[in-house]
Amino acid sequence: MASSAASGEEPVPLLPALLLFRRLDADFAAALRQRFRVLDFFASGEPLPAFLAGAAALPDPPRAAVVMGGGAVRVDAALLDAVPSLGFVFSTGAGVDHIDLRECARRSVAVANSGTVYSADVADHAVGMLIDVLRRVSAAERFVRSGLWPAQGDYPLGTKLGGKRVGIIGLGNIGSLNSKRLEAFGCIIHYNSRRSRDSVPYKYFFNVHDLASESDVLVVACALNKDTRHIVNKDVLEALGKDGIIINIGRGANIDEAELVRALKEGRIAGAGLDVFENEPKVPAELFSMDNVVMTSHVAVFTSESRSDLRDTTIGNLEAFFSGKPLLTQVLPW
Amino acid sequence: MASSAASGEEPVPLLPALLLFRRLDADFAAALRQRFRVLDFFASGEPLPAFLAGAAALPDPPRAAVVMGGGAVRVDAALLDAVPSLGFVFSTGAGVDHIDLRECARRSVAVANSGTVYSADVADHAVGMLIDVLRRVSAAERFVRSGLWPAQGDYPLGTKLGGKRVGIIGLGNIGSLNSKRLEAFGCIIHYNSRRSRDSVPYKYFFNVHDLASESDVLVVACALNKDTRHIVNKDVLEALGKDGIIINIGRGANIDEAELVRALKEGRIAGAGLDVFENEPKVPAELFSMDNVVMTSHVAVFTSESRSDLRDTTIGNLEAFFSGKPLLTQVLPW
Repeated sequence: MASSAASGEEPVPLLPALLLFRRLDADFAAALRQRFRVLDFFASGEPLPAFLAGAAALPDPPRAAVVMGGGAVRVDAALLDAVPSLGFVFSTGAGVDHIDLRECARRSVAVANSGTVYSADVADHAVGMLIDVLRRVSAAERFVRSGLWPAQGDYPLGTKLGGKRVGIIGLGNIGSLNSKRLEAFGCIIHYNSRRSRDSVPYKYFFNVHDLASESDVLVVACALNKDTRHIVNKDVLEALGKDGIIINIGRGANIDEAELVRALKEGRIAGAGLDVFENEPKVPAELFSMDNVVMTSHVAVFTSESRSDLRDTTIGNLEAFFSGKPLLTQVLPW
Repeated sequence: MASSAASGEEPVPLLPALLLFRRLDADFAAALRQRFRVLDFFASGEPLPAFLAGAAALPDPPRAAVVMGGGAVRVDAALLDAVPSLGFVFSTGAGVDHIDLRECARRSVAVANSGTVYSADVADHAVGMLIDVLRRVSAAERFVRSGLWPAQGDYPLGTKLGGKRVGIIGLGNIGSLNSKRLEAFGCIIHYNSRRSRDSVPYKYFFNVHDLASESDVLVVACALNKDTRHIVNKDVLEALGKDGIIINIGRGANIDEAELVRALKEGRIAGAGLDVFENEPKVPAELFSMDNVVMTSHVAVFTSESRSDLRDTTIGNLEAFFSGKPLLTQVLPW
């Protein structure tokens, strides 16, 4: 981190300006400030319109913005109108559902995302949650921690992972890494994706309802867009059936959460492992008393290793943009 | 299950007798009683010596015994002396540390165990606990369930599984299945075993201390015997180091539990996933407040699928013994 500072202190005004719409850990923030003039929305304390107007009025207005996936600030026509100097938006998540890609494309604003830095971690977390639901790890954990083992004896049986038919919704990077891991446990992989892939030996289902009816487990690993909002709805849950388990490491809104809660309450599906929710950080309180549900707080991407990879990817893309080189993890060309 | 009953009711006295030292679920018990005259110790309510004396005095004394792995009743010289008609002992667990194999061999008492019926489930559970410890699944679960997410925001970062050096102690059936699963996550496998194996590409360590010092994670997957009691001791924990994680799906006494608790309390190792304990069902209370520890109640073998496989294996071995055929999952020949 000392490298560019060691090369001599450049006068601050020469650094390219960028808008930051995300809280960062100290290392990451320091690495950005070494290279860029960071206009930090959350640190500014200003309302968004005033912050954007102030940035746009600078003699050297910001040409790039760093936004958080699923964060509070959406990159839409209003934001792009307010700061017309913007030419590049970087999402620190893989999802870009908070960025209006059509508006960006229309204005030739380039977009990049975190690429694959999180993919292995998310795939790992999905496997961990599936084992947890099937084998009741968190539930047995509560049982042991509450001191009930000596009094109550054996904990109820779990269910074997091997031989399970796992239907993956979205066979992108995360879904593919998830399938490779699950194959090692003896699972049978099915998938739904925008199109069938010749490169994988798995059975393809054109629609999610059919996938659910031939799967024991559904793993939601797709991006959120208008086609995938509530892609798991009441009918799909019905098709999955009372022994079925659902794992969501996509976005909360990929599932109709109210229907999911109802299906769990009524025993119409067997269990769920959820890292994401429709109204984070709010989690439906009905889930808190269910032992067949495993919930984590949108942490599937959160490891110190992936955080460090994200820093490199963020800075790499910003430096590429400001020096006119190809973006590293481009979503929209510029 | 109806098959042998449908073949006509045989008179009860003709069924071969066996001693049962284990509580069974209703299906399993019914399947045994259909085929054998079951002398059930726990149902008898008698003290062990009286129960054994009664069984030995029968006109057709029991020739086989079914005992539980890690159960309350040990098959030792005293038990074998009390019922000299015994010619076969079946352990419903993979471990036979509760059976004095030397005494059995000396008396030509055959021994069989559950074979590999649990191996995949135990290997799966070990992976689940490792992901749980690294990625803080159970801890994040508690965080979400207690409603802290909205108030406290992001949960602390976990650690990536890929690239971790996993040292497996005991590369038997369970250890091998565990290693295959972990390879799919990008782990680097090392192992310690009684002897090096040419059939695997992993690095072999003759002693556990050296294995620990070159591993990020230790997985205890060995049997319990005099050589492996406290095979993970203070020195091994020291060698594993403060970033190290230990997973135990062997037997509680494979680890010096008091030293493990001390190392965890003092931050000399990073975390643990424990399905077994030295004095089950007692668990050291100090562990209850640790978020870097995942504890389950000896359930790594507990799935409905493995339970059904166990029933088949138990009956298959007993029928083989009583009809003079080779045992299916023999530990000691007869």
